[in-house]
Amino acid sequence: MPPATALSASSSFTIFSLSSSTTKSRPTNFTQFPFRFSPKNPTLNMTSSTARSAVSIEREVPETERPHTFLRESDDKEELSTSSVRARFEKMIRDAQDSVCQAIEAVDGGGKFKEDVWSRPGGGGGISRVLQDGAVWEKAGVNVSVVYGVMPPEAYRAAKAAAATDQKAGPIPFFAAGISSVLHPKNPFAPTLHFNYRYFETDAPKDTPGAPRQWWFGGGTDLTPAYIFEEDVKHFHSIQKKACDKFDPTFYPRFKKWCDDYFYIKHRNERRGLGGIFFDDLNDYDQEMLLSFATECANSVVPAYIPIIEKRKDMSFTEQNKAWQQLRRGRYVEFNLVYDRGTTFGLKTGGRIESILVSLPLSARWEYDHKPEEGSEEWKLLDACINPKEWI
Amino acid sequence: MPPATALSASSSFTIFSLSSSTTKSRPTNFTQFPFRFSPKNPTLNMTSSTARSAVSIEREVPETERPHTFLRESDDKEELSTSSVRARFEKMIRDAQDSVCQAIEAVDGGGKFKEDVWSRPGGGGGISRVLQDGAVWEKAGVNVSVVYGVMPPEAYRAAKAAAATDQKAGPIPFFAAGISSVLHPKNPFAPTLHFNYRYFETDAPKDTPGAPRQWWFGGGTDLTPAYIFEEDVKHFHSIQKKACDKFDPTFYPRFKKWCDDYFYIKHRNERRGLGGIFFDDLNDYDQEMLLSFATECANSVVPAYIPIIEKRKDMSFTEQNKAWQQLRRGRYVEFNLVYDRGTTFGLKTGGRIESILVSLPLSARWEYDHKPEEGSEEWKLLDACINPKEWI
Repeated sequence: MPPATALSASSSFTIFSLSSSTTKSRPTNFTQFPFRFSPKNPTLNMTSSTARSAVSIEREVPETERPHTFLRESDDKEELSTSSVRARFEKMIRDAQDSVCQAIEAVDGGGKFKEDVWSRPGGGGGISRVLQDGAVWEKAGVNVSVVYGVMPPEAYRAAKAAAATDQKAGPIPFFAAGISSVLHPKNPFAPTLHFNYRYFETDAPKDTPGAPRQWWFGGGTDLTPAYIFEEDVKHFHSIQKKACDKFDPTFYPRFKKWCDDYFYIKHRNERRGLGGIFFDDLNDYDQEMLLSFATECANSVVPAYIPIIEKRKDMSFTEQNKAWQQLRRGRYVEFNLVYDRGTTFGLKTGGRIESILVSLPLSARWEYDHKPEEGSEEWKLLDACINPKEWI
Repeated sequence: MPPATALSASSSFTIFSLSSSTTKSRPTNFTQFPFRFSPKNPTLNMTSSTARSAVSIEREVPETERPHTFLRESDDKEELSTSSVRARFEKMIRDAQDSVCQAIEAVDGGGKFKEDVWSRPGGGGGISRVLQDGAVWEKAGVNVSVVYGVMPPEAYRAAKAAAATDQKAGPIPFFAAGISSVLHPKNPFAPTLHFNYRYFETDAPKDTPGAPRQWWFGGGTDLTPAYIFEEDVKHFHSIQKKACDKFDPTFYPRFKKWCDDYFYIKHRNERRGLGGIFFDDLNDYDQEMLLSFATECANSVVPAYIPIIEKRKDMSFTEQNKAWQQLRRGRYVEFNLVYDRGTTFGLKTGGRIESILVSLPLSARWEYDHKPEEGSEEWKLLDACINPKEWI
């Protein structure tokens, strides 16, 4: 009997805005997870027991071909598929997956993405693409997924602050879709990039006339170099700001700070990298505007990142440069395994491990009590991770 | 301003049997942590809110010299220091630290341990020793620590199921001491070893006449090879069984299974390694017997481990052997950062990071979807991690 490591196919790694929590048991074929309905109401985030109710999602099965959509048939009628936010968001993330993967393969010159496709019997599915040990990237993962699930009515009721009106409500169906990617280059002067854009929607509760559906957007793009090239970081942040400014002048400063706050390795008092933008649970703007904004952000990944890689991918480096990159990759592992909501959620609820952990670098290093010499290039990077800067 | 990574001195990494939980804030100079009082009563483990009450411990300060004891003066009177379990346990773990470090240095031939000593103003402290980049070990950490703290009366009352009798009880002082060690060799045929022995004691509540003090022992020794040499694993388990059998014939089978259950990487459906023994919250035997048992176990580390290292440290190996060791070290990182109680507790409560994470290997590796060829040596190791075996 082969020691097959169990899970066959996959959910993407950071679709949801989910916090980690230990779930003690999981019934066969279902994933139990704690659910954060809306962070705007502090009683609803993951520290609240009411919001911790389990959400059930079917287990996934591998597919041999990419379907034209992962939407349920009822969501895929012609008039819907050209107009619904669900359908347009799915199309957007699949297009973004294609264009990012194409750009990566073109620059890499050597590596090709390996693709895994999977679906769930009741609707939903995903496409995982991984390029490993290429000429430029040591590991690059770009995943999309679509999830249909059911959440307990308590979460919906609590979100609407209408607990008293609706004692008989049943579970609320929800829809979520997202793209998530981590790109780790080989050259220690070429930065790691992460991006993730996601959309969430509930149905309107059928047994509560007038109760509305809920929806929100989340996501972000952030840069994690081992060495600072100020022109690179400025370029990266400028593209993020440009995407933000097309929609709202408050977005960039707000989402830049949110990013610095989110990618915080608390036990080190350091950020994972040099930030970018991050937002979550965004629903207090026009829905069409936010769909356009998420699209603009996803479309900004290639122009924000690829020019930096072109400049850095062939730079010569020392063993010491490589060792420092490896130490910073150790920090990346620490953040992802200890703090990242998508990763910790995925690990604890039985998602496809290889898809979840594709975010980890090919290799990482931990030296006891390593302290860069004051004023060195390594020290400058660490300083910027401890004290986030305004780059533009 | 140097980008100093904050915390100055140290607590050891796995003194307690503590589960992980997010603590939102920590007052200056104090470490807040959730406390598991006794696992025998399921309502008291970390999923219970009553047992989650915060425990306060002072922050530590560096020392230039090793004190003769970390006990408080009141615990260090002559008659006590030769007879109390606290004093004898501290002596035992400090002796074990010395003898293990001596044995490691003797075999390594090149590397020397670097020592950090620290104490807490109100009593307690510790000694961290790390050997890095030696001839035989790439990273070897051996830490001892002694902690005085205060736990909320609810935890004590709940443990005694006497909540109703004692409404005015104040906080209960407690004492904990432990030794904790992880030894990662360079050669992929030489296994990693982890061991940890700890003792916990509360005071008797002063305001509740007749209420007794509580105490327990915990610990274990386990082996994590990248390749199986059956004679090595048999030797290692035989020494563990021999130590156990001196005290109780049920200990080895029970603690062997407990070890397989504890070092379980749930998201991989694999154990971290090939086990050994593990026990926790042991108090339903004679206290003197358990002190002798913990001492016997600690004294068994050198005879269980060093002969294996002597045989394997100079074996020739291929790049592929090394890459497999690195992949297994990735699993070690996953276990320690995601599941290990001591590590996750330490990270979330502000212990000295370099001491906590000395358990991580110098380097580790994550390949996408790596599957060893059926029947290969790598496959055999993985199979034994998925399906724990009886080695003796």
